[in-house]
Amino acid sequence: MQLSSFGKNAAGGTDRVAFSKYDLEARVFVQGLMKEGGLDVSIDFAGNIIGRKAGKNPNLKPIALGSHIDEVPNGGDYDGPVGSMGAIEVLKIFSENNITTQHPLEVIIFTNEEGGVIGSRALVGSLSNEALQVVSNSGLTQYEGIKLLGGYPERIPEMKRTRGDLAAFLELHIEQGGILDAEKLDIGIVEGIVAIEWWEFTFVGKANHAGTTPMNKRNDPMLPAARFVLAVNEIVNSHEGRQVGTVGKIQAFPGTGNVIPGEVKVNVELRDLSSEKIWNIYAELEAKATELASTSETQLDIRHIEVASKPALADPMIREIIKTQAEKLGLSTKSLPSGAGHDAQEMARIASMGMIFIPSKDGISHAPAEFSSKEDIANGANVLLQTILALDQKLNSKN
Amino acid sequence: MQLSSFGKNAAGGTDRVAFSKYDLEARVFVQGLMKEGGLDVSIDFAGNIIGRKAGKNPNLKPIALGSHIDEVPNGGDYDGPVGSMGAIEVLKIFSENNITTQHPLEVIIFTNEEGGVIGSRALVGSLSNEALQVVSNSGLTQYEGIKLLGGYPERIPEMKRTRGDLAAFLELHIEQGGILDAEKLDIGIVEGIVAIEWWEFTFVGKANHAGTTPMNKRNDPMLPAARFVLAVNEIVNSHEGRQVGTVGKIQAFPGTGNVIPGEVKVNVELRDLSSEKIWNIYAELEAKATELASTSETQLDIRHIEVASKPALADPMIREIIKTQAEKLGLSTKSLPSGAGHDAQEMARIASMGMIFIPSKDGISHAPAEFSSKEDIANGANVLLQTILALDQKLNSKN
Repeated sequence: MQLSSFGKNAAGGTDRVAFSKYDLEARVFVQGLMKEGGLDVSIDFAGNIIGRKAGKNPNLKPIALGSHIDEVPNGGDYDGPVGSMGAIEVLKIFSENNITTQHPLEVIIFTNEEGGVIGSRALVGSLSNEALQVVSNSGLTQYEGIKLLGGYPERIPEMKRTRGDLAAFLELHIEQGGILDAEKLDIGIVEGIVAIEWWEFTFVGKANHAGTTPMNKRNDPMLPAARFVLAVNEIVNSHEGRQVGTVGKIQAFPGTGNVIPGEVKVNVELRDLSSEKIWNIYAELEAKATELASTSETQLDIRHIEVASKPALADPMIREIIKTQAEKLGLSTKSLPSGAGHDAQEMARIASMGMIFIPSKDGISHAPAEFSSKEDIANGANVLLQTILALDQKLNSKN
Repeated sequence: MQLSSFGKNAAGGTDRVAFSKYDLEARVFVQGLMKEGGLDVSIDFAGNIIGRKAGKNPNLKPIALGSHIDEVPNGGDYDGPVGSMGAIEVLKIFSENNITTQHPLEVIIFTNEEGGVIGSRALVGSLSNEALQVVSNSGLTQYEGIKLLGGYPERIPEMKRTRGDLAAFLELHIEQGGILDAEKLDIGIVEGIVAIEWWEFTFVGKANHAGTTPMNKRNDPMLPAARFVLAVNEIVNSHEGRQVGTVGKIQAFPGTGNVIPGEVKVNVELRDLSSEKIWNIYAELEAKATELASTSETQLDIRHIEVASKPALADPMIREIIKTQAEKLGLSTKSLPSGAGHDAQEMARIASMGMIFIPSKDGISHAPAEFSSKEDIANGANVLLQTILALDQKLNSKN
């Protein structure tokens, strides 16, 4: 709640977009918490805040944990803060109780997660120079924003970590699908973060006068487009599993009430933990769209838009530890995919990754109504703490 | 073709929007033609060009005929010019052959037809002060444009004509539905200009994260909206007759690929010669949309947008004369509604109205590819000429 005071607006939302005045103030606050918790604090070239705690064995690589404190415009209090505060709290408890793990520990508060997981992409070497020039919600480019945070964008390539540099990465986060809340479960064990693919299906007919063109002389792409919207839903639902498919955007061109459209564009998004499944479903969509175009005598044009084409799978060993530790605490669990993107998806490119979800009321996120109870947050932090301890033992015994 | 030289562009289109340099030049040319044809030329307060020819009987009201010479941006050579040149040619032939009708005759070249039948609305008193402030395609407001033409917009209320001021109004025009061209017919006898109604149907569900929200937890208004698009087509087609119904615009909100829409808006346009039929079809659409909203658990909001809510019916006696005269000339005819708006629809508010259509290749209009053959244009002008003569006799014998 103290963190939420930075950027709280009159509507009850939080306006703490990355690189804003409130983000800068909140970062000072977070660094203070880390220092109180006995951590060595530094800022990396991408502006990520890193709090380090030494381990007993200097030959071991760090176990990292963390999340983000930036929010979408008019966002809530929990998406990011739960995992950020949770990670700091866990290390603070270790310090207060003189617990020293074998592995060094690192809390990472990532730069501008909501604006495209900027800090974690920088950390794993997947942030391009072009991406640094993209304007963020603050009005500053990522480049300008990172400079403002005390980062050094020109030197981001030097900070790249590769596989072997971290023993593991863990992230605690609210569950944004409402599944844990609806099923009254305590802890979600994330199987992985889904791959995302977008396609733009364009049905091309013939634009014409909506008054003078008789019904039987029309070549109206709105009709196959509408049939296709329904087919997307049917085909996605016809498969077993937790894949999702969405038409979030549809546009007719020229797009005025008195002209039969010449083109209708339908945006399709598919998400699943399996890229293979996504592409199998796409093949069915393509076949259906082709059939609809053929029977309506329209032309079909399909454009693929790459979003996040590889799923980021959680490490099965870490998933098992999370499950065991949650059950030891008497908490109910469920394994589920993350349909949303997180810094953990980038970290999975270079390290064994695990994610712990806690319930979010009605699955609401990115909105002022976002809410998780104190009890659920404490449960999540406890599972995170026990998982770190168990993982520290497990990885040490393997070495 | 001479008229088309004013504003001809490199793409073969005609950029003669009302109030443009090319419109002004073309108007000078047209006034010259009228004078050559022995007409008394004047400009009314709305900038309409009026060419008068006296009749034998000074007690009779004028028979008016005409069309427009302004075009849509990158328009064609025939929509407007055929009827404008045709009307002037008819009166010129009367002058050359010393034919004087009982009624006075008036050729009217209306101001800015393509920008909302401005000149004819001014003439019948349906042009509001607000409409004068609307910016036209030229960049000037209607008010500024009319001043540029030599009109006097403040005095437009004084020029209003009422029923009884004109004996009749006739307009020759290209047929924009492609029906005459497809059926290889010479002359279309217009039954009337259709009424137009618009509605915006909004299906309201719940916007949500497209990744985290499972398929069975969605309240996606895209689905009833797509079903409704198909229903509009089915319902409009299920009625006998020549009504048309179009979904020219569909929008999802927020309208991005990674968000399940909270709202989808579907614009429906219906046109028919019978307002009653339009509203009967609307009642079916409303019932269907209500059912779709109910079964999908979305909310439905319907907004009616008035466009041209009254049809403008042609005078049956004039239709009969057009038919008889066309057949005397050995031309094939078909009675049909006009799905597009014309100055004649405004003139029908105060006078008996008749419209003569000639074929336009593939029904193309408002585009550079617009084309009518010389033979078809001559046929149309001949029917116009014979109709004026027959109507002059008929109306005179009635008085």
